[in-house]
Amino acid sequence: MTARIITIGDEILIGQTLDTNSSWMAKNLNELGVEIVEHQSISDDKPQILEALQRGNLADVVLVTGGLGPTRDDITKLALIDFFQTTLEFDQETYDRIVAAFTKRDIPLTPLHKEQCFLPAAAELLPNKKGTAPGMWLEKDGTAYVFMPGVPYEMKYLMEAEVLPKIRKTHQQEIVAHRTIQTIGSGETSIARRITDFEDNLPTHMSLAYLPSLGTVRLRISSKGEHPTALNEELDAKATELVSLIPDLVFATGDETIEAIIGKLLLEKGLKLGTAESCTGGGIAQKMTSISGSSGYFEGSVVAYSNRIKNELLQVKQTTLDQHGAVSEQTVQEMVAGAIQHLGVDVAVAVSGIAGPTGGTPDKPVGTIWAAVGTKDKIITKKFRFGRDRTKNIHLTINYTLNVLRKFLLAG
Amino acid sequence: MTARIITIGDEILIGQTLDTNSSWMAKNLNELGVEIVEHQSISDDKPQILEALQRGNLADVVLVTGGLGPTRDDITKLALIDFFQTTLEFDQETYDRIVAAFTKRDIPLTPLHKEQCFLPAAAELLPNKKGTAPGMWLEKDGTAYVFMPGVPYEMKYLMEAEVLPKIRKTHQQEIVAHRTIQTIGSGETSIARRITDFEDNLPTHMSLAYLPSLGTVRLRISSKGEHPTALNEELDAKATELVSLIPDLVFATGDETIEAIIGKLLLEKGLKLGTAESCTGGGIAQKMTSISGSSGYFEGSVVAYSNRIKNELLQVKQTTLDQHGAVSEQTVQEMVAGAIQHLGVDVAVAVSGIAGPTGGTPDKPVGTIWAAVGTKDKIITKKFRFGRDRTKNIHLTINYTLNVLRKFLLAG
Repeated sequence: MTARIITIGDEILIGQTLDTNSSWMAKNLNELGVEIVEHQSISDDKPQILEALQRGNLADVVLVTGGLGPTRDDITKLALIDFFQTTLEFDQETYDRIVAAFTKRDIPLTPLHKEQCFLPAAAELLPNKKGTAPGMWLEKDGTAYVFMPGVPYEMKYLMEAEVLPKIRKTHQQEIVAHRTIQTIGSGETSIARRITDFEDNLPTHMSLAYLPSLGTVRLRISSKGEHPTALNEELDAKATELVSLIPDLVFATGDETIEAIIGKLLLEKGLKLGTAESCTGGGIAQKMTSISGSSGYFEGSVVAYSNRIKNELLQVKQTTLDQHGAVSEQTVQEMVAGAIQHLGVDVAVAVSGIAGPTGGTPDKPVGTIWAAVGTKDKIITKKFRFGRDRTKNIHLTINYTLNVLRKFLLAG
Repeated sequence: MTARIITIGDEILIGQTLDTNSSWMAKNLNELGVEIVEHQSISDDKPQILEALQRGNLADVVLVTGGLGPTRDDITKLALIDFFQTTLEFDQETYDRIVAAFTKRDIPLTPLHKEQCFLPAAAELLPNKKGTAPGMWLEKDGTAYVFMPGVPYEMKYLMEAEVLPKIRKTHQQEIVAHRTIQTIGSGETSIARRITDFEDNLPTHMSLAYLPSLGTVRLRISSKGEHPTALNEELDAKATELVSLIPDLVFATGDETIEAIIGKLLLEKGLKLGTAESCTGGGIAQKMTSISGSSGYFEGSVVAYSNRIKNELLQVKQTTLDQHGAVSEQTVQEMVAGAIQHLGVDVAVAVSGIAGPTGGTPDKPVGTIWAAVGTKDKIITKKFRFGRDRTKNIHLTINYTLNVLRKFLLAG
C-alpha cells in the first residue's frame, strides 16, 4: 500500500509556517506499514491542486491538508468538485454541530460558518470534534483521497479517530519494522567509520539510516518481510550487534527521550533532582519537567543568570567568582553544592557558560561551557567547547549535560 | 522568477525528521521576490529523483537538498550524471579542503571521504566550509539546479554564502513585500469576524493570510507591484488600518518576538526581571534568556516545582498552600512577592497550574493556570483555562503570561 501527502497553502510554501503535519502523518502511516512515496506542498491555486490530485492517482491513499477552514477561500472545494465531478450540498449535521459547539462557548456564529457547511455531495464526511470543517473521504479510480483542515490538532484528531482506523481496516498489511538506536557525543562520519563492516554486511532487505540532530545521531535499522516473528528476531539481533559496536555512544534503544530515561533512573533510585542553571536559563529544568509525572523526582531550580544570584541563592563564594570567573570548574562545583543544600535535593546539575554570540574572551571563547553533576558526597565536572551559535550552544549544553547526568546515575 | 524545492531522503518521507530546510529556503527565496511554486519530498530512488528533476524544468531555479554526504549512498549522484549527461571527476580542491579540516581537528580520514570527492564534471562547485560535501550548481534548458547536503547548517551556509547571492545577481527582481502583524489572545475566526470589511476591501494585488500558532495568530498582508515606494506606502497604510481594528490583540508589527519586545521595555525602564515558575518548569526564564543581551535585564528564577520549594525559597506561606492550594491566586501573588525579595528584582512573574494530563480535580481541572505579574507595590493576577494537552498547556502558559507581563510594563 502506498500513500502520498499533499499540503495546500501559501504559508508553508513561502516558509512562514513549518510543515509539521506531513511529518506527523508520514510517521503514523509508516507505522502501519504504508509506504510513503512523496510529500508535496503547493499553493491555493486550482490548476496546481488539480495537477497534484491527478498525480495522486498512482498511490492507494492521498492525504491532503489545508485549504479548508472558515477564513480560507474555497479554491480547494472548487478544485475538488471538478476533480470528483460532484456538487456542493448543505450538510445540516455539520451545521448543527457547529451551532451546538458555539452556543456552549458563547461565541457568535458568522455567515462564514454557514458557508462552510456546503460540502461535496460525493464525500463521506468525517466529523471533526476539534473544529468547524469536517474531514472528507472521496474515492476515484481505486485511490482514496482524504481532505483535512491544516490546523495540526484538528488534522491529528481526524487521523486518529477516523482516517488511520479506516486505513488499518482496508489494508492487507505488508510488514515493515524499524529499530532506533540513539547516540550522543559523536558525529555521523565517526560513527560510520566504526560500523563500516556492520553496514556493508547488512542483508539487502535491511537498511541503515543516520539521523543527526543537535549533538545526537539516531541510527535507524529498517527491514521488510512477510513473517513478523522472523523479521523482528532478525532486527533485534542486528540492533544488539550495532549497540555492541558503539556502547559508549548509545543512550537509548527505541524512541525514549534522554529526559524520560533520567526520570526512570531517578525514580528507581529514589533520588530527587534539582538544577542550578546559568547559560541554559532554565532549559534543563524545562526539559526534565516536560514529562508528566516529573514532580515525583524533580524538585526545582535556581536559574542564576546574574553573578549576584549565584552568590546569594547558591552560595558561590565571591572569591571564586572573582578569581576563576562565573564560567569555571570551581563555580559549577559550588553551584551543585549550593543547589543540593538550598533546593534540598539528592542530586544536582549545574551549568555556566558563554552562549554567545558576544561575551567571549581569548581564554574563554564563545561556546565554552562548564557543567557539573553531583551529590553531597561526589561532584564530577565536564568542560564543553561548542561553536558560535547561541541557540545551538544552549541546546547542546542541555543535551550533553543531561547525558553527563545519565552516566553519573548509571555509575552511582 | 519561480523556484521549486526538492528534498531527497527517507528520513523526511517517513516522518522521522521534520523538514525544516524547505521552510528556511522558501522564506529566504520569498524575501528576494522569488515565487515558490512547490516543495516536493521524495525517496533516495533514482527514477523518483529523475522524475522530480524533470518536473523542475518548469521553474527557473530548483533547490535540492539531501542525498549527499559521507554516509549516503550515491544514488543522487548517479541520477544527476544521467540527467545532466556528465561524468564523475576527482576534485583535488575539495579533497585538500577535507584533509586540511580533518588534520586540524585531529580526525582520521576514511575512504568514504575520498569517494565523496568524485563530483560531476559539469557542475560548478560551491565550497562548503561547514562540511565535507560541496554544493553543486548545474544548468539545463534555462533552469538552474542547485544540490546541497541535507544537514541544516551546511545547507544554510551554502545558501547564504553562495546560492542566494547568485540568485540575487541574476534575477531581475519583481517586487513582493509583506507586513506581519502578530496577535495574541483570540482565534482565527473571531479575528476574521472583526476584520471582514477590511478583508473584503483589499485591492486585488494584495492578500491577507492567517497563520495561527499556540495562542497567537500572525496576520500577513502581501502585495506585489513594480514601484517599491508606492507599494511600501500602501502596505504600511493597510497595516496601520488593520492594527486599528484589533488594537487589543496586537502585540507586534513585524517579526519581533514577544520576549524581544519585553526585553526592550525592561531596558528602557531600567527594570530587572525574575521569574518564579511551577508548571512551566523554567520555560519562561528560558524564553527570556534565549535572547543575546538578556543578562542586561534578566537576573534569574526560582523554579519551584514542589510545594516545599515554594515555601522555603519563595516564602509562600504554608497556610496559603493548605487553604488555597498551590494552584491559586493567593499562591502566585506570594510567589511574585517572594521572587522580588529573594531574587532582588524589580519585576517578577509567577505561574502555577495543572499542566496535565493527570492531577486535575473537579474545581481545578487540567488546564487551570494562575499567573501573576508585579512589583513590590502592585501585583496583578490572571486565571487561564486551557485544555488537556500537557505540552500545549505549558507553551500557552508561557506565551499568555509573557503577554500579561508586556501589558503590565506598558501600563506602568
